[in-house]
Amino acid sequence: MDILIAVDFLSKLKNKWDETKFVCVGLDKGEFEFDKAIIDQTADLVCAYKPNSAFYEVRGVNGWEALQDTVSYIHEKHPDIPVILDAKRGDIGSTNEAYVKAIFDDLGVDAATVHPYLGQESLQPFLGRSDKGIIVLVKTSNSGSGEFQDLKIDDKPLYQVIAEHVVDWNVNGNLAVVVGATYPEELKMVRKIVGDMPILVPGIGAQGGDLEGILKHGLNSKKQGLIINSSRGIIFADNPRAATLKMHEDIVGFLKS
Amino acid sequence: MDILIAVDFLSKLKNKWDETKFVCVGLDKGEFEFDKAIIDQTADLVCAYKPNSAFYEVRGVNGWEALQDTVSYIHEKHPDIPVILDAKRGDIGSTNEAYVKAIFDDLGVDAATVHPYLGQESLQPFLGRSDKGIIVLVKTSNSGSGEFQDLKIDDKPLYQVIAEHVVDWNVNGNLAVVVGATYPEELKMVRKIVGDMPILVPGIGAQGGDLEGILKHGLNSKKQGLIINSSRGIIFADNPRAATLKMHEDIVGFLKS
Repeated sequence: MDILIAVDFLSKLKNKWDETKFVCVGLDKGEFEFDKAIIDQTADLVCAYKPNSAFYEVRGVNGWEALQDTVSYIHEKHPDIPVILDAKRGDIGSTNEAYVKAIFDDLGVDAATVHPYLGQESLQPFLGRSDKGIIVLVKTSNSGSGEFQDLKIDDKPLYQVIAEHVVDWNVNGNLAVVVGATYPEELKMVRKIVGDMPILVPGIGAQGGDLEGILKHGLNSKKQGLIINSSRGIIFADNPRAATLKMHEDIVGFLKS
Repeated sequence: MDILIAVDFLSKLKNKWDETKFVCVGLDKGEFEFDKAIIDQTADLVCAYKPNSAFYEVRGVNGWEALQDTVSYIHEKHPDIPVILDAKRGDIGSTNEAYVKAIFDDLGVDAATVHPYLGQESLQPFLGRSDKGIIVLVKTSNSGSGEFQDLKIDDKPLYQVIAEHVVDWNVNGNLAVVVGATYPEELKMVRKIVGDMPILVPGIGAQGGDLEGILKHGLNSKKQGLIINSSRGIIFADNPRAATLKMHEDIVGFLKS
């Protein structure tokens, strides 16, 4: 009997949601052996891993190798768990082609975060990769995110306008958006705009986001649709598995209630 | 006699402008030997070099080493020429701290491009580096840049609102903005907003920007203030020095006219 393994980002993610797994662990340390220990402790509990490019880049060539090793390790040991590179890239089209090759073809991750500011035309190299998840920044978790994101365009905040555009761009069904856990009311508005589209929600844990508010306002019509990320709150916990399990069980508890 | 060498970005840049040099050569190939040949041919003509991170990242570990080698080569051979890393970074503050360390402390470039979308609070690790140039995307050169950048906030396009904020952020005098060569009218508006602040103008050459329009609308009150970048139009020319010299002489000719 052949065993079919999902290869595209959204299928991998949906399989994890079907297993009632919504926790994404952010890998913000930049060291392979550290990542390996975290992965070994948490792989049965998560819907995704999210290495953040900055923490590897800051270690130069060694960091770049660590990132490759971490992505390869997840793909080999846990081919069913999608890897999201949190790189927040965004340049003109010809440059984005190089980023797409670096991130998807060479590094081989399943999804990446991108900045919307240069628009759809510039992002086409990303958007056209229907096998990969393209996760567009909409409302970020930081305290000052409102400076531009909440500016009103005809009475509608910019982040909502961007969410509407992302819906229009989604001809390949491979798009998702970022909304910070620190903004549950904005999450509610974005969920209304994007329908069942996946939403990556960073900002749980160290940044102080509220899990119950996120679940209440962020789940889609299928009681799925969320990638709830904790980075520092898990990887620097005394017991990373216990921290992940707590978050996982809180989510399962909410869904059963 | 001691010889004083400028070490901060803006001083290096002003010295080059005083020598009537405004051409910035974009290094978009990602190979050190290639970069070295370009630098050797053009160093007496330029105000800056601008390696684009994507074209190094796409070569993985080798690319990362090439970027380090290229930056080191410019700093050793031509310590008076500033190096701008075109990386278009932009994340939450704690992550931007890692990018700042990677870009300024380890790689050691003089300036970097950043996305404005997360706001001043997130960019503080960059903005606080008063020795370095922080160059904020305002109006990008791509054909679809208007999708969000031209949206109106109370009748004012978003890119102008962002330019106004950058002026407010500039307490350390280390900020600059990006306006594409393909938008001379927008450049005129941004120049009015930012006063004498440096403007990085990409999009000359392969992207079709018009040099005379840029000079007419972009020079500041001191007939300086522009970093006019050509990447593909110079580095992939049959004769890169001739292409740089042509651009340099066209600029000198305009300034004398």
